[in-house]
Amino acid sequence: MSEVLEAARRAKVAAAALAPLTRATKDAALHAMADALVASQDEILAANARDVEAGRASGTSEAMLDRLALTPARIAAMADGLRHVATLPDPVGEVVRGSSLPNGLELRQVRVPLGVVGIVYEARPNVTADAAGLCVKSGNAVLLRGSASAYESNTVIVDVLSRAAVGLPPNTVQLVPGTDRSSVEELMKARGLVDVLIPRGGASLISSVVENSMVPVIETGVGNCTVYVDASADLEKAVAIIVDGKTTRPSVCNATETLLVHASVADEFLPLAVKALKDKGVTLHTDARAGAFDSSAVPVTEEDWAAEYLSLDLAVGVVDSLEEAVAHIRRWGSGHTEAIVSRDIDEARRFVRSLDSAAVMINASTRFTDGGEFGFGAEIGISTQKLHARGPMGLPELTSTTYVVTGDGHVRG
Amino acid sequence: MSEVLEAARRAKVAAAALAPLTRATKDAALHAMADALVASQDEILAANARDVEAGRASGTSEAMLDRLALTPARIAAMADGLRHVATLPDPVGEVVRGSSLPNGLELRQVRVPLGVVGIVYEARPNVTADAAGLCVKSGNAVLLRGSASAYESNTVIVDVLSRAAVGLPPNTVQLVPGTDRSSVEELMKARGLVDVLIPRGGASLISSVVENSMVPVIETGVGNCTVYVDASADLEKAVAIIVDGKTTRPSVCNATETLLVHASVADEFLPLAVKALKDKGVTLHTDARAGAFDSSAVPVTEEDWAAEYLSLDLAVGVVDSLEEAVAHIRRWGSGHTEAIVSRDIDEARRFVRSLDSAAVMINASTRFTDGGEFGFGAEIGISTQKLHARGPMGLPELTSTTYVVTGDGHVRG
Repeated sequence: MSEVLEAARRAKVAAAALAPLTRATKDAALHAMADALVASQDEILAANARDVEAGRASGTSEAMLDRLALTPARIAAMADGLRHVATLPDPVGEVVRGSSLPNGLELRQVRVPLGVVGIVYEARPNVTADAAGLCVKSGNAVLLRGSASAYESNTVIVDVLSRAAVGLPPNTVQLVPGTDRSSVEELMKARGLVDVLIPRGGASLISSVVENSMVPVIETGVGNCTVYVDASADLEKAVAIIVDGKTTRPSVCNATETLLVHASVADEFLPLAVKALKDKGVTLHTDARAGAFDSSAVPVTEEDWAAEYLSLDLAVGVVDSLEEAVAHIRRWGSGHTEAIVSRDIDEARRFVRSLDSAAVMINASTRFTDGGEFGFGAEIGISTQKLHARGPMGLPELTSTTYVVTGDGHVRG
Repeated sequence: MSEVLEAARRAKVAAAALAPLTRATKDAALHAMADALVASQDEILAANARDVEAGRASGTSEAMLDRLALTPARIAAMADGLRHVATLPDPVGEVVRGSSLPNGLELRQVRVPLGVVGIVYEARPNVTADAAGLCVKSGNAVLLRGSASAYESNTVIVDVLSRAAVGLPPNTVQLVPGTDRSSVEELMKARGLVDVLIPRGGASLISSVVENSMVPVIETGVGNCTVYVDASADLEKAVAIIVDGKTTRPSVCNATETLLVHASVADEFLPLAVKALKDKGVTLHTDARAGAFDSSAVPVTEEDWAAEYLSLDLAVGVVDSLEEAVAHIRRWGSGHTEAIVSRDIDEARRFVRSLDSAAVMINASTRFTDGGEFGFGAEIGISTQKLHARGPMGLPELTSTTYVVTGDGHVRG
């Protein structure tokens, strides 16, 4: 058996021992893991320096190196993240529904851990601690498959976390051995050992896992989010919402990528919006009608409509109706988050009911689709698929359920 | 584009129009569909007779022919099934959770249809109407891929249902064109058009879909269910539970396939159980210790422990502890349903917490794992996977959710 499958087998054994542990045991382990990260700071930084050096030598961009690099402050933040997860309610054991059946059987649907969770992710080593913490809290063994560029950092972080995790079964937290493509391929084949794979990263990583995995996958993160400014919109609020959505953090999945404006307010709204966006350095990619309001705009292409820019670019179009906006979003959107700016309650209701996205904002920025903003306390990712979890995934989304049925010798006969 | 993908594309268009429909519209369509089945009885029976004749000519077993054959009573039952689904609550629109966030945003997580549901199933043509009814009620367009042996019956049934479905978008209910393997293969590749595939049938059909589909799958049905008779069991109740689980309907997935007995009660329990089971015609496959109580028993093999017999066969073993029973179930079980017979509350609690199955019964027959018994009103299948749905799946399990967030010009800034 391959090293990856052996790790998965160990994880499955760990998961069985982990599932019945009490919240107190898991929280104590999370605190010990947090303390250990801080105590082992020098060791972690040294390993990270080797990763950064190797990255620089191989010509990695400074932006990528910045995501890879750890500092004492970033390690402290990782530790604080673990301590924060300890404060959250334990999802395991929650009774989701229950009833007494006509024959006297007592039915309860109870949250249980998923079992073994595989996370496939890219550069940032803080994901290693975040994901480990969420999995431990939700009673799951975790197989972490970070990027090759962070392998030294991740190896030390996982080693530190594992040694510190008192009271948890061995192999609760494991780094997937190996850094080449084949280790991901083996994870994707580990049906029966791995209960779910969660890819976190760029679109190509995600689609490769989604298309090739035999293990169930939760698809995360691609966000081509649209703001639609309706005929009845408060235009000042609309400007604030589009500027917030586009410019506060362009590189994240809940950033706004497309603006659609109802024709009846285009004349009034677009000059305001264009000015505010250009003041923030945004490049507009416009259709013919929107282009009339920005002499420096680039003509929009089908690639633009489909794009998750993750940059200070915005596709802009004018539509003649809410239906046209909905049809546009259904054709080009990624089903992450859409927003309507409107004062018309019927139009807002129609917008919500006509779309098929993980989140729909009414008079609010697309940037609010976030586990922290939603009050979940923590987030393992944002699902854009419809099965199991959709939208920001917190601790409950890392669980399954079991039906527990109690009788007194009941038979169906 | 292939015929199957064209059908899937039409289904996606239908799904968008179907999602916002009210319960009243959907229920009216369900009643019209039910009436049409009865009114078109002769047409359906004629098509079914052709299927049965072709099956008999090609040497299909009488048992299979019986599953395939329709009668006026069976058609009436299909119609009643649709009318019953109309009486159930509409899962679409249910608010699963919600809160007011600290910044005043109002958050609601609302059930929405999955979109396009593909069902791949075997012989029985009544599944065609059942699945169509559940999908219509939950606002999903459905692609039905029945077996080649029932193609004539299914064609007429789907045609009757479609014509009758007043108020629903065209192509809400479609039979997948073609009867060969390639039509299933195309469904499995229809990512972005089909939101979920649910295979219903034998183990080989299910595992083939699970392993090859790029569309998300809900795995249903394989049940290797175990009853564990604990040291403190009420032995009379234990006999009733094992006889019920094994003999009331051996061919279904919640039938009991394995009996494990604690060594301390084996001497007293097994003679009672063996007699009761043999009176019902059950063949026992026993380990060395259990074999001592049945001179006609067959020695148990690893294949027996793993088997979903679906027949009057039962694998029987003696264990020295609850832990040994749990380890056996974790090794050989299919994660469907297990039962403990015990008067010891601590042991029952430990059994529940140590297993990883869709349902665990305490002093009740494994046969109770069923949507109807659980009070769900209807069932599309029993999921043995952990993602999205686990155990009996009713209407809510045919939905996803959307977050609807209402603000007043909120920005993150």
